[in-house]
Amino acid sequence: MGALPEMPATWIIRAEPLTREAFLPFGDVLESAGAEPELINFGNTSKYGRLADIENTNGGKGQISLYRSRAIEVPFRIRVMESHPLGSQAFYPLHRRSFPVVVARPGPAPGPGDIQVFLTNGYQGVNLHPGVWHHYQLSLEEESEYIVVDRAGSGDNYREHRLEDEVYLGL
Amino acid sequence: MGALPEMPATWIIRAEPLTREAFLPFGDVLESAGAEPELINFGNTSKYGRLADIENTNGGKGQISLYRSRAIEVPFRIRVMESHPLGSQAFYPLHRRSFPVVVARPGPAPGPGDIQVFLTNGYQGVNLHPGVWHHYQLSLEEESEYIVVDRAGSGDNYREHRLEDEVYLGL
Repeated sequence: MGALPEMPATWIIRAEPLTREAFLPFGDVLESAGAEPELINFGNTSKYGRLADIENTNGGKGQISLYRSRAIEVPFRIRVMESHPLGSQAFYPLHRRSFPVVVARPGPAPGPGDIQVFLTNGYQGVNLHPGVWHHYQLSLEEESEYIVVDRAGSGDNYREHRLEDEVYLGL
Repeated sequence: MGALPEMPATWIIRAEPLTREAFLPFGDVLESAGAEPELINFGNTSKYGRLADIENTNGGKGQISLYRSRAIEVPFRIRVMESHPLGSQAFYPLHRRSFPVVVARPGPAPGPGDIQVFLTNGYQGVNLHPGVWHHYQLSLEEESEYIVVDRAGSGDNYREHRLEDEVYLGL
């Protein structure tokens, strides 16, 4: 008598609010709230400086892109996670709408229990550190645009992991 | 009988619309219009990739900051131009309002006749190439925010040139 065949489990991962502290294992939060500004440009500008460093290893170069992503419907099935071992990747929402950030810590391919979802407040971007597992960019409600800062260059900067369990993003 | 003493001249520099072609001597225009998107993320995202490269020499690192700049009144006197020889500097408007970009080509300190003003359309950012002379970030009408990508690191990355003539930005 063998063991019963294993059934794929169903997971629903609920979003939590994005804060600097909770996001520390994954990267930087790009927001002025809670940061100390420096007055520059003869007093005309408040600078919230160096909210994130751009990381590039293996001879890469930083690049700036624009992404336009259509909206998903929630609950949304998380089928694949990816990571970029050679560089950081930053997203800032140009429509200043809330968006979900689906991440897991760097290391071996994540299981459903390793995945966390953070919900931005519309005035927050994120900078993912190299190697952090993440879902591709997701928008809610409406098609939205993002400015993206990441690594351009040769070398293998893409890892992909397909989830076998049924994992859903909930809000 | 000596020559008459030289009087400082008054210049008014009128803004012209920002286009990729006109801005070529100064840097990159960050906009999706006129760029060819690549469909990524299983068809969910249009990527307008590598609109700009981030340049860093002398061991610097790219950084991401947020700037909040109060509005100027026009005509606005241009008193000082600056340049960053060791790195590029990019600005994208988070309020998606038009803003003026005051620039002069890299090289010796610019005179009034070397200065050009470009007016963005609200959906455009710019990436200034290293060494390009520019005025500090200016906003029109209302206080506005920008995401800024430039170089962090040691080394002399700041040149400043004060204009003796009376030079004004006109719209």
